[in-house]
Amino acid sequence: MQFKPRFAGYDAKTRNSFAQQAMMKTFGAEIVDLKPGHCVITAPIKPGVTQQHGFAHAALTFAIGDTAAGYAALSMMDEKAEVLTVEMKINLYAPAKGDLLIATGKVVKPGRRLIIVSAEVAARNNDQTRPIAVLQGTMIPVE
Amino acid sequence: MQFKPRFAGYDAKTRNSFAQQAMMKTFGAEIVDLKPGHCVITAPIKPGVTQQHGFAHAALTFAIGDTAAGYAALSMMDEKAEVLTVEMKINLYAPAKGDLLIATGKVVKPGRRLIIVSAEVAARNNDQTRPIAVLQGTMIPVE
Amino acid sequence: MQFKPRFAGYDAKTRNSFAQQAMMKTFGAEIVDLKPGHCVITAPIKPGVTQQHGFAHAALTFAIGDTAAGYAALSMMDEKAEVLTVEMKINLYAPAKGDLLIATGKVVKPGRRLIIVSAEVAARNNDQTRPIAVLQGTMIPVE
Amino acid sequence: MQFKPRFAGYDAKTRNSFAQQAMMKTFGAEIVDLKPGHCVITAPIKPGVTQQHGFAHAALTFAIGDTAAGYAALSMMDEKAEVLTVEMKINLYAPAKGDLLIATGKVVKPGRRLIIVSAEVAARNNDQTRPIAVLQGTMIPVE
Repeated sequence: MQFKPRFAGYDAKTRNSFAQQAMMKTFGAEIVDLKPGHCVITAPIKPGVTQQHGFAHAALTFAIGDTAAGYAALSMMDEKAEVLTVEMKINLYAPAKGDLLIATGKVVKPGRRLIIVSAEVAARNNDQTRPIAVLQGTMIPVE
Repeated sequence: MQFKPRFAGYDAKTRNSFAQQAMMKTFGAEIVDLKPGHCVITAPIKPGVTQQHGFAHAALTFAIGDTAAGYAALSMMDEKAEVLTVEMKINLYAPAKGDLLIATGKVVKPGRRLIIVSAEVAARNNDQTRPIAVLQGTMIPVE
Repeated sequence: MQFKPRFAGYDAKTRNSFAQQAMMKTFGAEIVDLKPGHCVITAPIKPGVTQQHGFAHAALTFAIGDTAAGYAALSMMDEKAEVLTVEMKINLYAPAKGDLLIATGKVVKPGRRLIIVSAEVAARNNDQTRPIAVLQGTMIPVE
Repeated sequence: MQFKPRFAGYDAKTRNSFAQQAMMKTFGAEIVDLKPGHCVITAPIKPGVTQQHGFAHAALTFAIGDTAAGYAALSMMDEKAEVLTVEMKINLYAPAKGDLLIATGKVVKPGRRLIIVSAEVAARNNDQTRPIAVLQGTMIPVE
């Protein structure tokens, strides 16, 4: 599906919002692609973000999946709106093994009151990148 | 509901597993209560874990809610099993404002193959502690 | 938690709305308890609602769980509002075996724009009633 | 993604299982497409399945979305296995208005213990078919 942004300056607004998220800085996360209804965020799997088996913690997978989905939704919102996650569901189906997580968020259905979103998270391990989780949720605009 | 642990040494096993989660250390999270089918984890809302409005990031709320639910489930598992989140759904309904998050995880239904869990996360702001999110999900044992 | 209804006539309004749901009639469902933020709905497990093993179909469990949660939320809404399910997650953890399903819906967090709800569904088999599913979701008011 | 069935006779097995679901008969549901990891089910929006506004009840949307996803998963299971929904999350984002619902279920990730699935449900209204809901969930094999 092709989406039109609701506000022409959504790109700068999104990057500015992202820069203010201390948690994203803690994780070393970056926006690597941004289009209306679409956002890709990466985060390195570094020592401080692992769980008990040495893989990336589910919270990191959730963090960048949720954030990619949220910024995909933000492009569908008015200039003054900020985006808030109402609810998010994550299915984790492979170990987050490797050196980088890549989350691709997209808008499923834009709406005035609610925006339905999804995301897929993949892990890059050496030369291989394979999907490890899917997310489905709801974003709302707040002023 | 009252639960009996499947393995007498679950307490030490759980605390040992928790200690190996680098992400929990990064967040400064602590287990503050642990009983069969029940686990409470706290994490301070410090500068590195906020989102763009200065409140705790949803990823922190998810992280400790999911972890509290997981360790509640671990007490229902055999000695050699470790716990893995299959899926988790979170509804976020109030800002994570304050200085501390408190997640209470519990077992809804223990099973041999799957354990259904839930968690509630609250934020402590000065003298007030109020619920901000609920989680519902599925844990499995892995060896 | 104790809830106050937003509109005094919520009881008649709810029963009237329920009576207009043809699906509830098809299922033989009934409201058996209704209070602010709380609603109990039952449905018989009759021949036309089973799955391939002769137990109640997950769709029946979902139907009355979702409806009980929705009408629990309706009591928190203004006079003119109707209730709509935005999203609902169900964990099914025991077979829906017996002659009657009983869904207890409740409000987790009332809000002006969104109401967070949960429900538990139990199956009555001879003299025993045991929980088979939990639901967690979001309702919105529509006019 | 291309999937190989685990058991050559999955087509007959699936249709036989479907035929035994009384609820599907009550709804007039039909399997209209079936391939490994993929299943499409339709159901007419007839008088007995509506909610209070005359649209299809969310339970019908859930019923065929969940069933399409389940039978998509069944093709990934061994000969003797039957499929069971462990958990399912549905986001409903447009009214189920029209004369027919069409659910397309697919496998996101097949596994030995768990199969991650998704489904999209659309409503046909005169000449237009538009998506109204998405589902994401987990299926397990049972013997």
